[in-house]
Amino acid sequence: MVKLKVKVLGIEAGDKPIAVLHEEDAADLGVSVLGRVTLKDGGAEMTAVVNITRSAVQKGTIGVFERIATVMNITNGAELDVNPAQYPTSVNYIRSKMRNRPLAYEECLEIVKDTVAGRLSEIELTAFVTALNSFGMSMEESVSMARAMVETGRKLEFNAPYVVDKHSIGGVPGDKTTLLVVPIVAACGLTIPKTSSRSITSAAGTADRAEVLMPVTLSADEMKAVVNKTGGCIVWGGALELAPADDIFIRIEHPLSIDPLMMPSIMSKKKAVGSEYLIIDIPCGRGTKLKTIGDADLLAKDMIEMAGRLGIKAECAITYGEQPIGHTIGPALEAREALEIIMRKRAVPDALDKAKHIASMLLNMVGKDGPKLVEDALKSGKAEEKLRQIIFEQGGDHEVQPSDIEIGKYGLDIHADRKGVVLWANNQALASVARAAGSPSDKGAGIYLYVLDQDEAMAIGDRMEMLVHAVRENPLYKKSFILER
Amino acid sequence: MVKLKVKVLGIEAGDKPIAVLHEEDAADLGVSVLGRVTLKDGGAEMTAVVNITRSAVQKGTIGVFERIATVMNITNGAELDVNPAQYPTSVNYIRSKMRNRPLAYEECLEIVKDTVAGRLSEIELTAFVTALNSFGMSMEESVSMARAMVETGRKLEFNAPYVVDKHSIGGVPGDKTTLLVVPIVAACGLTIPKTSSRSITSAAGTADRAEVLMPVTLSADEMKAVVNKTGGCIVWGGALELAPADDIFIRIEHPLSIDPLMMPSIMSKKKAVGSEYLIIDIPCGRGTKLKTIGDADLLAKDMIEMAGRLGIKAECAITYGEQPIGHTIGPALEAREALEIIMRKRAVPDALDKAKHIASMLLNMVGKDGPKLVEDALKSGKAEEKLRQIIFEQGGDHEVQPSDIEIGKYGLDIHADRKGVVLWANNQALASVARAAGSPSDKGAGIYLYVLDQDEAMAIGDRMEMLVHAVRENPLYKKSFILER
Repeated sequence: MVKLKVKVLGIEAGDKPIAVLHEEDAADLGVSVLGRVTLKDGGAEMTAVVNITRSAVQKGTIGVFERIATVMNITNGAELDVNPAQYPTSVNYIRSKMRNRPLAYEECLEIVKDTVAGRLSEIELTAFVTALNSFGMSMEESVSMARAMVETGRKLEFNAPYVVDKHSIGGVPGDKTTLLVVPIVAACGLTIPKTSSRSITSAAGTADRAEVLMPVTLSADEMKAVVNKTGGCIVWGGALELAPADDIFIRIEHPLSIDPLMMPSIMSKKKAVGSEYLIIDIPCGRGTKLKTIGDADLLAKDMIEMAGRLGIKAECAITYGEQPIGHTIGPALEAREALEIIMRKRAVPDALDKAKHIASMLLNMVGKDGPKLVEDALKSGKAEEKLRQIIFEQGGDHEVQPSDIEIGKYGLDIHADRKGVVLWANNQALASVARAAGSPSDKGAGIYLYVLDQDEAMAIGDRMEMLVHAVRENPLYKKSFILER
Repeated sequence: MVKLKVKVLGIEAGDKPIAVLHEEDAADLGVSVLGRVTLKDGGAEMTAVVNITRSAVQKGTIGVFERIATVMNITNGAELDVNPAQYPTSVNYIRSKMRNRPLAYEECLEIVKDTVAGRLSEIELTAFVTALNSFGMSMEESVSMARAMVETGRKLEFNAPYVVDKHSIGGVPGDKTTLLVVPIVAACGLTIPKTSSRSITSAAGTADRAEVLMPVTLSADEMKAVVNKTGGCIVWGGALELAPADDIFIRIEHPLSIDPLMMPSIMSKKKAVGSEYLIIDIPCGRGTKLKTIGDADLLAKDMIEMAGRLGIKAECAITYGEQPIGHTIGPALEAREALEIIMRKRAVPDALDKAKHIASMLLNMVGKDGPKLVEDALKSGKAEEKLRQIIFEQGGDHEVQPSDIEIGKYGLDIHADRKGVVLWANNQALASVARAAGSPSDKGAGIYLYVLDQDEAMAIGDRMEMLVHAVRENPLYKKSFILER
């Protein structure tokens, strides 16, 4: 062990906890470049990756990157006890998975603990995620990972009769359903502590949309206060320390375009906010993640089983996902459209139908008459009132009008170069165009799809029917025979 | 593009090319933390990983870690053109392998080029290596990777009739065969430009052993000069820039204890030094990498086929590997023992038998009478003379005597606590003890196995017969029937 004086270097390398040691101190500790040391400052302890220098810091001093300064809350001149880090035993479990052996809960917990504590290198983390992707995970392993991820993060509890949640696996541009479902079900007396993500590759995430109306970066305590007052919230999940391992895994998964941990990722966050009832929206069809209803059904079954094992009652809504929802794509345009819908200033049949179906399913799950309550909440203006209450409690302008929402000042009208009907809209191409326009980082950027306004080539009847079908716990097809054995 | 002034930070993060940008410069370039930029200084170009700061460097200045300063040969105040790096297309090929699709040569070449140029992140490299490990590589892919690795590195050529080489897949402590084979075959007129590695997990690598007798860190030009003068050399491969991708892959493989690229790694380095004839030593048995002769045969077949596809004529020696070779383990002890053997001061039957067999096989391959020539070279003292000539040309003391070689001054004799015969020696345990004593970084540390001196419980007959059998290109077992079809 050596005692070293801190020099905050003011360099940021993502979330990597990098410590710069003088080569003589490193030699004294017996650590080499990219090796790991533990830093101790009174009670707080942290694992850091070693870089070496002869000049950037002197012997007796340890240079620390931003991540370490922030997490340990230390400044120049602080003294740290520095020790060579123990070899994390979870590396053995990672190697085990790399040989295609299943992981037990205790092994998952150890891996997740070491991930959160920064004890695993990027190489080890990547090997783990890639091995999960190569060999897949059993239901048992998925449940274990989800439990371990909940266990190592913050857990919320609400003293309310029905804590419900909804989740969409995404893939459809313009999906503003959450902005409608949360106020509707909260207005009907359910508790819905909704956390959302920002966009990674899409034109907008729900957190991006909601942020147009109100602050979404709330701490866990602030979020709890909002939910206790209003029965709902729409906040960004990133600041809540729920299942923090997930954020680390996502940073590995994203650049590789893989998501082996999708199920544990979703479920751990639902479990961590205390959800008891959950609707999972699975958009389906060309241009979405699940191309066929068969695929969607299989995923739905797994989702429901996994939720059940975590003590969450879940149902899935397989929804029509082959074209954008509503007329708008982009944070501000979508927030404005959602506000118009809930204020009943505007008929947007597909968006409204989807929100009503999902809200009804949630209410039905807890034994209430969903369709009737939802209709009442919308017609009476209670849903709008609830949305404004949530906006107010999260720190936004609760008197906001659709016309107050600023959209980009530059525009370009694109007309079809021939007459005809729109047979299909390419979700991915539309998302790319919206991103090229600046969405989601420029909130006012996006696309307005006029043609879907005028032309009902894709809908037959009075309204868009968005729900393909609901999947509940009982099997869709019961076997009516018993195998000989 | 922005022009930035260099500030050399004097921090080393392994071979990672890290550049520290002021956050405003990063914003101007549109790159974020851990993104990649290309640095251009006149002709030289390099890809760097971005860290961000508000204080460590000012706007207009770029902080560079050691790797960048060294490779680009730049100092404080130099001006660099900095651009956001293009997305490397080879990432698509990596993703392809992650979905278990085979890689074509062109794809391998692109991956290897980007690896060498530093355009792939550690996450991408690890995902690639892990996917190779999960799904394996076909012969076709192995050959493609080897060719790509040769293509992107330095290639040596020797104007000599027979350029030969030997390689051991390792796993047996005390294996000083190379120190004997190189001078023997060079004394018999063959050219053997031998490159060796240092120990990673064993008690000593051949480069560690040879370094006791002579400098082994030679540049490619210095190595060529030695070989042109003496017909042989024993140098460390790490400074030669042969197949540089391999060193990068090994840095990923080693901490994960996997080696999916073992075959391309070995073969690319043999090809890069211009080898035409090759003997691969495959130690076999309990305590080695290949536990059974069947496993060893299968590997041998693949090795021979792969070498053939690269234009190298190869044979394999399946050798007895269940116990240490000779009486010594540790760099200095082993170098001393090898010197005593070649000086014929000491009979060490197993070490001598193995070296004679491998040297004979090499000579037989080029149409000479191996056993006779080898016997002559040893008895006449020509092999010893050749070793001293190589030592001299590599810059060592060519008059060195065994007693000049210093071994550690502290010793501990360990006696068996009961009478009996040694039935088996545990290779791994012996390597661990030698490493615990300080080997290989402390060259004088190691183990002397007295008992193997006195007790021949494991050998029957006059000498140790080390060669189990030789594997040549023609199949061991020819099918004598034709399948109906």
